[in-house]
Amino acid sequence: MANGSSFGNLFTITTWGESHGKGVGVVIDGCPAGISLCEEDIQIDLDKRKPGQSVFSTPRKESDKVEILSGVFDGKTTGTPISLIVYNNNQQSKDYSDIAKHYRPGHADLTYDYKYGFRDYRGGGRSSGRETIGRVAGGAIAKKILKELSVEITTYTKSIDNITIDENLFDKNEIYNNPLCFPDKSCVKKAENYLLNLIKEGNSAGGIIECTVDNLPAGIGEPVFDRLDAMLSKAIMSIGSVKGIEIGNGFQVASTTGLENNDFYHYDNNKIVKETNNAGGILGGISDGSKIILRAAIKPTPSIKLTQQTIDKEGNNIDINIKGRHDPIIVPRAVIVVESMVAITLVDMLLINMTSKIENIKTLYL
Amino acid sequence: MANGSSFGNLFTITTWGESHGKGVGVVIDGCPAGISLCEEDIQIDLDKRKPGQSVFSTPRKESDKVEILSGVFDGKTTGTPISLIVYNNNQQSKDYSDIAKHYRPGHADLTYDYKYGFRDYRGGGRSSGRETIGRVAGGAIAKKILKELSVEITTYTKSIDNITIDENLFDKNEIYNNPLCFPDKSCVKKAENYLLNLIKEGNSAGGIIECTVDNLPAGIGEPVFDRLDAMLSKAIMSIGSVKGIEIGNGFQVASTTGLENNDFYHYDNNKIVKETNNAGGILGGISDGSKIILRAAIKPTPSIKLTQQTIDKEGNNIDINIKGRHDPIIVPRAVIVVESMVAITLVDMLLINMTSKIENIKTLYL
Amino acid sequence: MANGSSFGNLFTITTWGESHGKGVGVVIDGCPAGISLCEEDIQIDLDKRKPGQSVFSTPRKESDKVEILSGVFDGKTTGTPISLIVYNNNQQSKDYSDIAKHYRPGHADLTYDYKYGFRDYRGGGRSSGRETIGRVAGGAIAKKILKELSVEITTYTKSIDNITIDENLFDKNEIYNNPLCFPDKSCVKKAENYLLNLIKEGNSAGGIIECTVDNLPAGIGEPVFDRLDAMLSKAIMSIGSVKGIEIGNGFQVASTTGLENNDFYHYDNNKIVKETNNAGGILGGISDGSKIILRAAIKPTPSIKLTQQTIDKEGNNIDINIKGRHDPIIVPRAVIVVESMVAITLVDMLLINMTSKIENIKTLYL
Amino acid sequence: MANGSSFGNLFTITTWGESHGKGVGVVIDGCPAGISLCEEDIQIDLDKRKPGQSVFSTPRKESDKVEILSGVFDGKTTGTPISLIVYNNNQQSKDYSDIAKHYRPGHADLTYDYKYGFRDYRGGGRSSGRETIGRVAGGAIAKKILKELSVEITTYTKSIDNITIDENLFDKNEIYNNPLCFPDKSCVKKAENYLLNLIKEGNSAGGIIECTVDNLPAGIGEPVFDRLDAMLSKAIMSIGSVKGIEIGNGFQVASTTGLENNDFYHYDNNKIVKETNNAGGILGGISDGSKIILRAAIKPTPSIKLTQQTIDKEGNNIDINIKGRHDPIIVPRAVIVVESMVAITLVDMLLINMTSKIENIKTLYL
Repeated sequence: MANGSSFGNLFTITTWGESHGKGVGVVIDGCPAGISLCEEDIQIDLDKRKPGQSVFSTPRKESDKVEILSGVFDGKTTGTPISLIVYNNNQQSKDYSDIAKHYRPGHADLTYDYKYGFRDYRGGGRSSGRETIGRVAGGAIAKKILKELSVEITTYTKSIDNITIDENLFDKNEIYNNPLCFPDKSCVKKAENYLLNLIKEGNSAGGIIECTVDNLPAGIGEPVFDRLDAMLSKAIMSIGSVKGIEIGNGFQVASTTGLENNDFYHYDNNKIVKETNNAGGILGGISDGSKIILRAAIKPTPSIKLTQQTIDKEGNNIDINIKGRHDPIIVPRAVIVVESMVAITLVDMLLINMTSKIENIKTLYL
Repeated sequence: MANGSSFGNLFTITTWGESHGKGVGVVIDGCPAGISLCEEDIQIDLDKRKPGQSVFSTPRKESDKVEILSGVFDGKTTGTPISLIVYNNNQQSKDYSDIAKHYRPGHADLTYDYKYGFRDYRGGGRSSGRETIGRVAGGAIAKKILKELSVEITTYTKSIDNITIDENLFDKNEIYNNPLCFPDKSCVKKAENYLLNLIKEGNSAGGIIECTVDNLPAGIGEPVFDRLDAMLSKAIMSIGSVKGIEIGNGFQVASTTGLENNDFYHYDNNKIVKETNNAGGILGGISDGSKIILRAAIKPTPSIKLTQQTIDKEGNNIDINIKGRHDPIIVPRAVIVVESMVAITLVDMLLINMTSKIENIKTLYL
Repeated sequence: MANGSSFGNLFTITTWGESHGKGVGVVIDGCPAGISLCEEDIQIDLDKRKPGQSVFSTPRKESDKVEILSGVFDGKTTGTPISLIVYNNNQQSKDYSDIAKHYRPGHADLTYDYKYGFRDYRGGGRSSGRETIGRVAGGAIAKKILKELSVEITTYTKSIDNITIDENLFDKNEIYNNPLCFPDKSCVKKAENYLLNLIKEGNSAGGIIECTVDNLPAGIGEPVFDRLDAMLSKAIMSIGSVKGIEIGNGFQVASTTGLENNDFYHYDNNKIVKETNNAGGILGGISDGSKIILRAAIKPTPSIKLTQQTIDKEGNNIDINIKGRHDPIIVPRAVIVVESMVAITLVDMLLINMTSKIENIKTLYL
Repeated sequence: MANGSSFGNLFTITTWGESHGKGVGVVIDGCPAGISLCEEDIQIDLDKRKPGQSVFSTPRKESDKVEILSGVFDGKTTGTPISLIVYNNNQQSKDYSDIAKHYRPGHADLTYDYKYGFRDYRGGGRSSGRETIGRVAGGAIAKKILKELSVEITTYTKSIDNITIDENLFDKNEIYNNPLCFPDKSCVKKAENYLLNLIKEGNSAGGIIECTVDNLPAGIGEPVFDRLDAMLSKAIMSIGSVKGIEIGNGFQVASTTGLENNDFYHYDNNKIVKETNNAGGILGGISDGSKIILRAAIKPTPSIKLTQQTIDKEGNNIDINIKGRHDPIIVPRAVIVVESMVAITLVDMLLINMTSKIENIKTLYL
């Protein structure tokens, strides 16, 4: 399935919907049977990306209530497709009527016209951030599976502009205690001030999201093309505003030596441990049993109120000031999206790896 | 096909082979019929990654001569699978006999054992860099297709450690004029000295590869999950030593504002042009007709002669000094590998995009 | 995507939903942009499989009204996923309460329990014939594409029990003029009498559906595994009650000689024609430009009122008499399902074939 | 991977090669690690399809010796791709020189030209029966996996023309004791006489192959599109000369009633058994634990010596008498091909089913 709205091989999601259509949704196929699942399990994550929760996100009011349409019976997944829907309630399509005629810088308006000849221009149509609702809903289900295996994902804002967390002040419980998803509360005030200034001038900010995974079994990831890091990179880079992805020490490896970069092994009470984790838990594309570490660079929201130069469809160079309701920063709301894509990827790769050894097959069938 | 040795949807490659097995190879399926192709077309790229060409690459002597086994008739591709083989000639398996028993830091030795229960330990087996021969061979064919469309890829060493090219001194013709693949010859001597020192001490270096694409049609890339940048990220991150990937301004976007980062459009003689290209030619996951720009961070060669601490299979903590023939830096030989993966991805996405509009379908069938 | 509810490579459908859940639906991805589409286009085919239209189909009353949730803007497909939903209205779940405890012969009750450990037993759950609504909806869209290319599919009841149409009395306009979808009205009365007798005794009947395709371009179908006939066979055999599929002369070829079976070519006004069409329009898995002909054997409805022996979950051998509302024959309502699966398969294969020649690629991009 | 030379999702084969190219081969990816494998394991099945073994198969002399190029180490599969090659030795390309210019009835000559614009006409090129070598080699490996699970496939000639086996005389040991692969030796003489007559007149014969599977676990097959019967149908119909496929009672169900066709369950010593097996071991697309039964209709060899009317590329209607070396019947050599495709399909579906329940996942990871 090569047309872009499906992801995964065994645990798969297919998303649909536009910003100002009737709704958005996702079909999850390949979810194993027997997992307890209710709407609240999914809603908890959807609420993390819901707009209108602080001054730092768009005031568009959407309850984003999810409804399970299929695939769950007597409170448990049945193994057949789980269809989820979130209706759009608070579309204000008039806000966007003028973007039918021009191309907003930094958006997909022009490229969708190139590709398809025309586009649903209302609120960005299919290229809107609302598309990520399906990812988050799918991710919530993936995390239920990961929980059964005690795999735990932690995702947070690493930096906004140059305001970066101090590892020593890291507190996981802080992440959803502040509207910016910082795990270091000392960053919050500084970043809020920085953003409030940008809001005032009608500009926007970028940042970095970090995601770590604990307790992932060793051996996950397929050799050569479907390496765990390659699959995670595709997953993360497919999120609208991501422009870079790195694993472990990432771009820093370019200026280190082999001696510095290699992680040494030793036995600690008969358990294999690494003294460092520059590799971010992945060697040869396969998990080594240590913590997975990745980071994504998120661009500033392209919709800004400041005057920009662009073109209209009639061949004119024009100036625009984008109206409507927009986030001054994408990072905090993207945190749960990154986490969801990681969760979906990990579940898919965990399932695929089950067939790597003949012993596994005999264990289940004999 | 989820087990990792295949890549692509319509233009696909399936690679096989181990470092010290009988050979390595690739099957390309979905190559359109009617392209002129001979072994020399492929050999020219294989020679760029061939070992033993300078002091900066492993002295293992391999002619790496490719043989076309199928899919070409009367000098043209037939549309059916193209099978290519390169026999291994210069295996020195004895060099590796001791790695059967211990796990080299920074390598996939341990993770393959985790995944499969055992491994072909000779020269890294399937996780060896020789695996990339199939990618380069497939890429050479992909580039023949791109050439028919005037799409041109340029790939080179951007930096080694902190020695970085000066854009003003960029000369495409220099790239294969120096053993380090720098397009700026002012870097070469500095980097050579840096590397010679590392070789002397038995250490290794990392760096950054940059790749740009000119004349890619606008509209390439599928929405949501199979975005052009997502597919390129998977492609590049699947190369053994890559730890980071970025598009356009990449990680820099994290500390810019929307106003700085957005690329403004204007009409220039009725042609749409962008004044800047911070996006690296991709918006909403779809090519916008401007230059594609991406960078990959390459880790230092994990095989170093310096003493490292690790473990053996019997439960002992040990010290090792890796013998055998190794590259002190992966970057120069990886340049053509990055280019090949980009080429394969672009061709696949170009083919998929052909079906995006009903007009296209009517053009070909009516 | 290997978990069974998706079909196709470039033009793909993903279906979801159970007989007595909230509804059933389908997501179509890869539908080319620019095709005019409204709900009525789809409803027309859904109405052909709707229950309760004659004494020969289940009296369950479902309006089966389809709603387009995404992928259409200004009356045209946008190239992004088309999500369609049909709500279930007339579930009478109490009718099925007892089947929670036992296994109906000829149904999937037992095999779903084997596979998933439990099942949504209400009305057959996911294995119900209502699952085919998504196929028919997807097929209606596929047929819009085929219409643009003048490809025409004709599907009808070939036989019920031993009552078989006479080719000389074939009248395409008759097909939807009788409740049994016979193109030969001389069969209708005979078959109705046969079925009325079966209804009286609480039994059911099987039959054969035939499907032909006119104007399919030559060259469609991929060599080796994804032959047109192989893809059609998978498509048709995936319909719940199909137990056999044949192309052209089908099983008759087993008792013919090469001389009898080969179709001879000749030129007729510079056009290549075949004198016979024993091959059913497919040679080497690729369409030859003549009429595609296939037939599917449909088993009798497994739900019958007559006493049957079976087992319950508690370990008892029991007798059952299946109550509830059931079709005495599946064939007529399956006609549009077969047609839909053929349409979806043909569109997918037409799209894939577009990349078979470098000329095609140059035509679209240069 | 949509271009036709790959099959499977988790256990996958990709075949390549033409009748008169350098050789034919296959890459198997997704074979679990730890299975003992040597060339003799594969050769034993290749020898069953090898030409030149009796008067009833083409006298082309090919040793068809297989070589393992990768994926096996210390006598065991490593989990990475297994590349197999068989060199072509006995091409007599001159025999085929004239078919460059005309189109043989019943062959893929014309359709390949339609699709690709030209073809490798030597011996049928890619559409030759030699393509099945890769399938048989892949099937031999699949059968090694099935053997570990005690799944046993039996495949044989059911009928040639109207000479059909008597079930009461069925003897599995006879199958490879006669050149026609009949399990009932009473058929052999009759069929040999029938074929010798056809050979004399330069004609050819068709027949039916039957395949049964014992001990397949219940629960195999995915719902809706990837049903076990649908996947088997695609697999079998993808074999060159197959024109029909049926499961269990197959086309007979069209003239039976529900009461006759339903298989009743009962408990026999707490084990669930069926009294009949009209369903052929598959209900709702999922195996029910009883014997799988399928049949394929094989057309007569299209290459016959008798005069046929056809066309040349220059626009002339011509008569041809096909020379060269051909089988007077395809059936016996196709027996092992059918068995191989069934084996590959079953292994793939067995692997996919491993992830159907959360219990399975916990069993392997916790």
